[in-house]
Amino acid sequence: MPATVPAPDEQPAPLPTRGSVTELGHLVPVAPSRGRWRPLGLDEVVITGGFWAALQRLNATEMIEHCEAWVERMGWSGNFDAAAEGRLPAARRGREFSDSEVYKLLEAMSWEVARTADAALESRLRALTARVAAAQEPDGYISTMFGRPGQAPRYSDLQWGHELYCMGHLIQAGVARGRTAGSDDLLVRVAVAAADHICATFGNGGNLGICGHPEVEVALAELARFTGDHRYLDQARLFIERRGHGTLGDIELGAAYFQDDVPVRDATTLSGHAVRALYLAAGAADVAVEDGDDDLLATVASQVLTTLARRTYVTGGMGAHHEGESFGLDWELPPDRAYSETCAGVGSIMVNQRLLLATGDPRHADAVERTLYNVIATSPAADGHSFYYTNTLQQRVPGRTPDPDHASPRASSSLRAPWFEVSCCPTNVTRTVASLAAYVASVDDEGVQLHQYAPTTIRAVISGGRAVRLRVATEYPMDGRIVVTVEEGPVEAWALTLRIPAWAEGATITAGGATRPAGPGYATVERAFTPGEVVVLNLPVAARWTWPDPRVDAVRGQVAVERGPVVLALESVDLGADVGSALVRTNEPPVERDGQVLVPIATTFPEEGHWPFGPAPRVPTLSDEHLVPLVAYHDWAQRGPSTMRVWIPVAGR
Amino acid sequence: MPATVPAPDEQPAPLPTRGSVTELGHLVPVAPSRGRWRPLGLDEVVITGGFWAALQRLNATEMIEHCEAWVERMGWSGNFDAAAEGRLPAARRGREFSDSEVYKLLEAMSWEVARTADAALESRLRALTARVAAAQEPDGYISTMFGRPGQAPRYSDLQWGHELYCMGHLIQAGVARGRTAGSDDLLVRVAVAAADHICATFGNGGNLGICGHPEVEVALAELARFTGDHRYLDQARLFIERRGHGTLGDIELGAAYFQDDVPVRDATTLSGHAVRALYLAAGAADVAVEDGDDDLLATVASQVLTTLARRTYVTGGMGAHHEGESFGLDWELPPDRAYSETCAGVGSIMVNQRLLLATGDPRHADAVERTLYNVIATSPAADGHSFYYTNTLQQRVPGRTPDPDHASPRASSSLRAPWFEVSCCPTNVTRTVASLAAYVASVDDEGVQLHQYAPTTIRAVISGGRAVRLRVATEYPMDGRIVVTVEEGPVEAWALTLRIPAWAEGATITAGGATRPAGPGYATVERAFTPGEVVVLNLPVAARWTWPDPRVDAVRGQVAVERGPVVLALESVDLGADVGSALVRTNEPPVERDGQVLVPIATTFPEEGHWPFGPAPRVPTLSDEHLVPLVAYHDWAQRGPSTMRVWIPVAGR
Repeated sequence: MPATVPAPDEQPAPLPTRGSVTELGHLVPVAPSRGRWRPLGLDEVVITGGFWAALQRLNATEMIEHCEAWVERMGWSGNFDAAAEGRLPAARRGREFSDSEVYKLLEAMSWEVARTADAALESRLRALTARVAAAQEPDGYISTMFGRPGQAPRYSDLQWGHELYCMGHLIQAGVARGRTAGSDDLLVRVAVAAADHICATFGNGGNLGICGHPEVEVALAELARFTGDHRYLDQARLFIERRGHGTLGDIELGAAYFQDDVPVRDATTLSGHAVRALYLAAGAADVAVEDGDDDLLATVASQVLTTLARRTYVTGGMGAHHEGESFGLDWELPPDRAYSETCAGVGSIMVNQRLLLATGDPRHADAVERTLYNVIATSPAADGHSFYYTNTLQQRVPGRTPDPDHASPRASSSLRAPWFEVSCCPTNVTRTVASLAAYVASVDDEGVQLHQYAPTTIRAVISGGRAVRLRVATEYPMDGRIVVTVEEGPVEAWALTLRIPAWAEGATITAGGATRPAGPGYATVERAFTPGEVVVLNLPVAARWTWPDPRVDAVRGQVAVERGPVVLALESVDLGADVGSALVRTNEPPVERDGQVLVPIATTFPEEGHWPFGPAPRVPTLSDEHLVPLVAYHDWAQRGPSTMRVWIPVAGR
Repeated sequence: MPATVPAPDEQPAPLPTRGSVTELGHLVPVAPSRGRWRPLGLDEVVITGGFWAALQRLNATEMIEHCEAWVERMGWSGNFDAAAEGRLPAARRGREFSDSEVYKLLEAMSWEVARTADAALESRLRALTARVAAAQEPDGYISTMFGRPGQAPRYSDLQWGHELYCMGHLIQAGVARGRTAGSDDLLVRVAVAAADHICATFGNGGNLGICGHPEVEVALAELARFTGDHRYLDQARLFIERRGHGTLGDIELGAAYFQDDVPVRDATTLSGHAVRALYLAAGAADVAVEDGDDDLLATVASQVLTTLARRTYVTGGMGAHHEGESFGLDWELPPDRAYSETCAGVGSIMVNQRLLLATGDPRHADAVERTLYNVIATSPAADGHSFYYTNTLQQRVPGRTPDPDHASPRASSSLRAPWFEVSCCPTNVTRTVASLAAYVASVDDEGVQLHQYAPTTIRAVISGGRAVRLRVATEYPMDGRIVVTVEEGPVEAWALTLRIPAWAEGATITAGGATRPAGPGYATVERAFTPGEVVVLNLPVAARWTWPDPRVDAVRGQVAVERGPVVLALESVDLGADVGSALVRTNEPPVERDGQVLVPIATTFPEEGHWPFGPAPRVPTLSDEHLVPLVAYHDWAQRGPSTMRVWIPVAGR
């Protein structure tokens, strides 16, 4: 199947197009046929060491198998067997969306097989695929929850049924498998059959409904890219255009919950359920890019940039309300009630990566990096056997260790849990980590762009079929020095472009013997590189104070500490006291010593009163100040129950 | 029926007991047989003018009829007709707890008939009672939701069914009617039959369940007080003792939601769903008082005092989470996400009034006053035709005016709504306002205690059958001067006790020609008053800055303004700009001018950025400072959509 989408009947408005289509570059979750940059795939970029390689190793050795074991144990994979064997609905287990966990796991396994060629994993992937395939009905419909005798009819509950959502994840898995194993794989056939069923059912003249949880849109768009079949894109567009007109009917949380209150084209920011909003925006970005719909692309980009400017936590986390797992209003970012769902982090990476490739705006790459380090990397425990669902920025009371043998409610614990009754996050982490290489670099006619920094080897083909091979050596984010060696390249000049994160004031680039400052954004070195030539990017990763916009009421008078892209946190196990008692002094920069970041903290001994409001500001008694080490936020709560805060009250404020 | 409860088999531990039982004093919602003070009833205290008389007038002329019209229009009173006529379940409308709205309305009507002797209202009350009575089953069970052919069986859903909760409100209505109209009234007979059914069903050896929503406990305890039948008290105790052992089973919100995680005796603070927690605490206080269970009383008092010290908004509002309508953790009091349900205000008044009467601790009377002025009085609009369900302390975006012809979701609007799909609050306000006189004063052997200040006439009988008549003249809370005239009293010395609110530093009492300072708490004037003698209490009500405990992270660097017991707020209609831009200067006290409180405010023009967190504190550009009038919080949003904040950021902090 061709890798680009044929033009629709109407000629789309011109977008920047890539000059060359190569044999490489299909091993990506997102493969736009237009846009500023083409992402490099898992066959082009290999992460060879450092922070992300370690997480990929954990994924390979622990996380994926952990998820396999739990979907089995919960009966969610067994639901497919029960369907094939006519034991539904009696034998069914799990919530209405449990099928999707199996599909996200299949996607993770597909990327992982491509990354590691693990034969045992390939075998398990095939076996699980066969069980899913056996449950598919002759017309392509697949759900273990609906449509069989004794079950509610198909599409009888579009508000909450999640049928299209689940099939969307099946289609994403099919695309991943198709790109990595070929289009005649069983998983691809199952996905395509499901997509054909969806188009036949929900196309023009058919069911005019939409799914309560967006996801099928982004999946259908990607399937269109993979298959070259524009029908899937048209169907994605239909779902997006139908949304926002009260199509789904009313619910107690309001139609804004599932983005059915305002059409995508009319919204000015993301709102409602965060994961739903982000998946929908990703799908809308895909449709806009493929159809050359510049208005829609600009609208989605503006929504996302506004959301980054006003509705995003310093961690990159999104979703300020537990109620409805939803975005708050502008500037409403309570650290202690941050929902910041791990899946919203995945959704943010999805949409920001799409907008980055379409527009070249570095803010999207910054958002991807921030979210990877501070949301995605925070979710799994060091052993890969438990996960955060929500990612609070302030823990007021030490949590209880979740039972390792039972699924937890989704947001009940301050400690990572092995599984959840609604367990969307662990499988979402595994599929993201397995495909991380696809976020590292891209190409255009002029050269190669590096967006995320890790020890990697990169090969790419730029315009004119000219091969480029790079090696990136770095200890980033611990160290800010990033050494890019051009191992192979054309003799004539070409462009190596490097992202300077917005926080990296004072960055420098050394190339051709000269060092120059490089402001935030993208900096390009255009040279006729000789093989072995080195470009050095120096990012100032030293720990720094980070202050909030004064409109973020919830953290007024508080400060956070970041080091490079990593958000730090104060944890009670380091303070030796409840972090609720801490005041920090900020006259000098945070101290770095022996690989630790330390800040001067005094603890307070507030007087107990009968009523917490009074006629004078209460000035607490302070302990002697001492230097306290901070922990990377993504590493918090790895040492047992604790209290924690990212935002620390500043003494004298 | 006697007004005191016979002693149970076990002799209870001694509590302070009253010396005299009078013929008066039955017209109260709470009539403990033991405790520090006996409350004066609607036959003893008449509110003759001022703030509360105006609200009672609004209740009489608008609010009660508004509620009557809406329970009719929503079909909730019609459900009883449908039950009697065999048209259930097909004809049923409303949620599972809709019966309770009719019962709370009956309670409001009962108090109001006692207060005003309104014959037309009496006639409507009898008619509505008859419709309810017709739906009662022969064994006393009554519910329009459960138990009939085609409905779920009785008590098949104790978690969410609200059957005992509804019957609890029926019993409270029956007690109100019994105390005000006599025990052979139909409403009393219906209530007693329901209570007998409950005791027969849930007594020892019967169904061991409890209701997901506490309320029947407090109702049964009061029915025991009214009838003198200890069975009802025993049943209340059973329900309280059974709770906290996972009796109800698990729910997604966790057993803490309905206080089934920890036994009442073991809890150290109120937690979970705020209304549930407060109603339960009120019932536990009643049982403790009647049975002389000092341990239980001390436990409940400690829970409530801790809740006041750490989990209560400056308005007296309780409930910091929209999710689960629940208490937050200690110090977790976000103003913009305050749930502060109006019904939780009612529940707080219920439990604090009980603890005040039992213990004489003035903090409970302070809490009642604060909650009356800033939660109960906030709920109804000036025309009495719309109500707040939740009471936010910060409104970030102007709301939309709710449709006057449709019930609103419970917490969706920043403007008062005419009715709600879950409409517990309007009827709760009406029953509270109709019975307000019962919160004003109490007696003991030595004399009379005044807890709440309003223009009133008071008659009481103290020990030895000695009659006392008082007249209170005041413009409180606008003015702090409260003039108590002793119109009649015994010739020998007796004690007039006056509450000094905790905020009233500098209060004075003038009696017998001498003025003395009176610190917060209770101050007693013990004299042989001559008829016509005057005692003057001067409370310093001048507007003052109010600062939060530094542990309340959400309002760090912000200040509120209070005037006497009234919390003030900054509203955009007065600022002429979004209140999100306001900074206040606090060097001098707030200005009082022409009956307004004004504070010096500058507005900011923050720069728009791409990312709200950065390397330096952002110092916004300020407008020229000007004096801006504040509005009483209970009057906010009476002038159309607006933004509002109780806590205002302080310049330079």
